[in-house]
Amino acid sequence: MNKNTKVNASILIIGNEILSGRTQDTNTSTLANWLNSLGVKLSEVRVVPDEEKVIVDTLNILRKKYDYVFTTGGIGPTHDDITAASVSKAFEKKYQIHNEAFKILESYYKPGEFNEGRQKMVWMPEGAELILNPTSGAPGFSIENVFCLPGVPSILKSMLGGLKNKIIGGEPILSQTISLRTVESEIANSLTEVQKKNKDVEIGSYPFFHAGKLGVSIVVRSESQSKIDSCSSQILEFVNKKKIEVVDR
Amino acid sequence: MNKNTKVNASILIIGNEILSGRTQDTNTSTLANWLNSLGVKLSEVRVVPDEEKVIVDTLNILRKKYDYVFTTGGIGPTHDDITAASVSKAFEKKYQIHNEAFKILESYYKPGEFNEGRQKMVWMPEGAELILNPTSGAPGFSIENVFCLPGVPSILKSMLGGLKNKIIGGEPILSQTISLRTVESEIANSLTEVQKKNKDVEIGSYPFFHAGKLGVSIVVRSESQSKIDSCSSQILEFVNKKKIEVVDR
Repeated sequence: MNKNTKVNASILIIGNEILSGRTQDTNTSTLANWLNSLGVKLSEVRVVPDEEKVIVDTLNILRKKYDYVFTTGGIGPTHDDITAASVSKAFEKKYQIHNEAFKILESYYKPGEFNEGRQKMVWMPEGAELILNPTSGAPGFSIENVFCLPGVPSILKSMLGGLKNKIIGGEPILSQTISLRTVESEIANSLTEVQKKNKDVEIGSYPFFHAGKLGVSIVVRSESQSKIDSCSSQILEFVNKKKIEVVDR
Repeated sequence: MNKNTKVNASILIIGNEILSGRTQDTNTSTLANWLNSLGVKLSEVRVVPDEEKVIVDTLNILRKKYDYVFTTGGIGPTHDDITAASVSKAFEKKYQIHNEAFKILESYYKPGEFNEGRQKMVWMPEGAELILNPTSGAPGFSIENVFCLPGVPSILKSMLGGLKNKIIGGEPILSQTISLRTVESEIANSLTEVQKKNKDVEIGSYPFFHAGKLGVSIVVRSESQSKIDSCSSQILEFVNKKKIEVVDR
């Protein structure tokens, strides 16, 4: 893949617990930051319930639309863990025991502890490649451009290191943040002008409230450091003219 | 709407800052819990970038598929706030000044402070109804089954009170949590049996790690308290048989 090609990804979060409000998803920001560092742009996230048809249909849309898809959740031992079976169906592959995963878990557990519930975790789509799990044994897996990770944030994080070499990104996406002691409406017009002059730089404006004071963070994102620098100096130019205090940059 | 009809909703999160990993979304769990209390089931969440075509297309899918759609983000004064313009386009309505919103903000700000940037926040689709904002003045709006809220979590929360009467839910979704000192694989098979016998109850299993100890929370959800009770006693039956400690219920 050409290093300059823009590479994108989506996340499919599988979990009733996110939709019920019981659990706060944090995997999106973990994966987003990690993907950025690899030069992959996260373009879409979908959260869907633990329902096979919904998972299959959504995955089949996302895997054709994006370079990479990361699923989170649903690869544990219980009845509501249906990700591996659903991914098999989406790819029209057999759902079967993965021999290497079986061996890993057989030696991970004490004799007699590798019970039927745990054996469910070695069922995967035919042809799946393992994603090793240094935290709790049970591996995730990938098939074509789809990477299936667990929902537990600490376990997911521990598995990203082993995954890095399987992801081929473009140029890393760089960013600079300029934090100002102002409100958005004071800078809105000037910022619009800068955005118009820098169409291929992404400029975001985010109000914040910190230590009792209001402010705005301007985030400038691009693959090119020189474009970021040029855009940032145009921003600082109007900031100085307006005598707005720069809190941090 | 019949009180027994199942009512569902989706959330459309509009924001590059979520996709870049800069900002951790917390509005999903706020809205999910609030919707549950009104008897509305959150069925899907999508996070999309600040791009008009993507917002328009996604909104047109979601608003036809679900009873309610809640958008978050993109209704501020800066160039990257394009939700109102995109919603207008999705509904093929004029994007115009909302007179009541104009009056609210005109009297909210000090004389001379209702500048061009702030005036952008009163542009809405023709026929929009306001959602009042007790925190920072600028209202959200609704049109048909779509409700547009801000991205800042504290402001979003403060606006839900005024929105309650516009949402007609079904029976509230009830839940019971049984927390056990065990691991998922020990209870997986028994839990599968209980789920088979209670098909219209949603049973989720979530491992936790608290105060140095592993455990599993089983969450039972249904509109019917008697169905939850019956399902819970079936769970407690196998838990007692297996001599698993109940940590909390």
